[in-house]
Amino acid sequence: MIQEKDKSIVSKKIIKVLGDDFVEHMDDIAVEEPLQISISILEPESPITNKNISITMRTPGHDQDLAIGFLFTEGIIQASDQIKGIILGENSINVQLNNSENIDLGKLERHFYTSSSCGVCGKASIDAIKTICRLPPSLADFQVDKNLIKSFPGILKQEQNIFNNTGGIHAAALFNVNGELITIREDVGRHNALDKIIGHLVTQDLLPLDQHLLFLSGRASFELIQKAAMAGIHFIMAVGAPSSLAVEMALEHDITLIGFLNETRYNIYTGPKRIKI
Amino acid sequence: MIQEKDKSIVSKKIIKVLGDDFVEHMDDIAVEEPLQISISILEPESPITNKNISITMRTPGHDQDLAIGFLFTEGIIQASDQIKGIILGENSINVQLNNSENIDLGKLERHFYTSSSCGVCGKASIDAIKTICRLPPSLADFQVDKNLIKSFPGILKQEQNIFNNTGGIHAAALFNVNGELITIREDVGRHNALDKIIGHLVTQDLLPLDQHLLFLSGRASFELIQKAAMAGIHFIMAVGAPSSLAVEMALEHDITLIGFLNETRYNIYTGPKRIKI
Repeated sequence: MIQEKDKSIVSKKIIKVLGDDFVEHMDDIAVEEPLQISISILEPESPITNKNISITMRTPGHDQDLAIGFLFTEGIIQASDQIKGIILGENSINVQLNNSENIDLGKLERHFYTSSSCGVCGKASIDAIKTICRLPPSLADFQVDKNLIKSFPGILKQEQNIFNNTGGIHAAALFNVNGELITIREDVGRHNALDKIIGHLVTQDLLPLDQHLLFLSGRASFELIQKAAMAGIHFIMAVGAPSSLAVEMALEHDITLIGFLNETRYNIYTGPKRIKI
Repeated sequence: MIQEKDKSIVSKKIIKVLGDDFVEHMDDIAVEEPLQISISILEPESPITNKNISITMRTPGHDQDLAIGFLFTEGIIQASDQIKGIILGENSINVQLNNSENIDLGKLERHFYTSSSCGVCGKASIDAIKTICRLPPSLADFQVDKNLIKSFPGILKQEQNIFNNTGGIHAAALFNVNGELITIREDVGRHNALDKIIGHLVTQDLLPLDQHLLFLSGRASFELIQKAAMAGIHFIMAVGAPSSLAVEMALEHDITLIGFLNETRYNIYTGPKRIKI
């Protein structure tokens, strides 16, 4: 009944009800599948240490970027030169790290009790939630034209492939300060789309992203702001609403946060200094 | 700058940009805060066992229902008579369980490595994902009128308090088969809104919910279908799109799954037998 079209979409026979009509129809559905992320730490003259890190429900595709982005935004790795190799399975990925010097295994403790899609990824205590980002100081004194901001939803609509088919997927996109699209990723999980972008740029050694603008197709939760902050991003635009903690986190990390963005309007929650009027 | 209005909403000064106008405005924002859930197992003549279970990012309110619903939908407890007491802190809750006979501590292992808002809540292996629901057989041979279904979004719009103010929150609502509203809950996390409903009904010993209809204000992910299945729910309507795994899970558990529901149309993904034409 379910037929695979590509990795991101399946086609399935459904019934569309419109007024009094019941019509059979082949419909595109966004794929959601688990990805198990593990790491292996290779040290000279020591046994290999293997650790299961996470299972995330994701849309297949760019799994390597997802895993690297996840390890980076969780603070477990700091740069691509710590990665020795990647072993990709169908729904699993093992990241081999070539030394344990800068690998913060303490960060793994945060995973030892955690939550159902909690968005905090298992902090060892509530106090720790706001303090995990130890960011390098980064300069983000650019300004973005007030009208340029309204153009991003239109660009996304053109670029967002899966969403147009399924209606069931989130996108994250990174632009430079001139408004040129750098990377776009789609996923059933907002956080995965963002990790895929960040992982892609970690691999290219392009962090921190302090001269970039981040666009989010949905709401802005605490977790997304935290991940962006880890990557040094100082300018975030969301189509949906931010949460209270997202606004607090943006204030704390000097991030410009825009919400309810569409082609005619938006709200500025924090950091209006980066918007050129 | 942020001023507390009630527990679910904060009011904050923002800048609204509309056309060329920049206007300062007091805006309502949905509260997102961590809740740390722990359990204590009280056994006669034994030391108390304390376990941290989860930190979830939630909108404050109905925290007790959230914790109980979470413990139930994760398979850790099976009924309210296992609960001896509740100790509520500001952002923490401890559930005291009065014996360990039916408490499945093995389920806790699932939390030992897990994901950033993964939606699976840390399975010990990917194979385990689809098999954690060991549901009691339940009878759900009712039918719902095809037009009644379209009335639910309108009911929700009238009932959904926080959403109307903030635009940033999800709702879950439970109806009986006649379409009468039983319970509605709102939260920044979809899964929390559903856990709050299920926890409320666990407390009242009203499970399984096999004669009820579940309405979800957003998309239908695997996790939500799994939680509903744990509560014996066989009829789920979502305003947004389902994922591929949500559809598979619904098929597997004989759940009627409706998506893209509004006042004029909807899609039937699984279980059309429960819709009266």
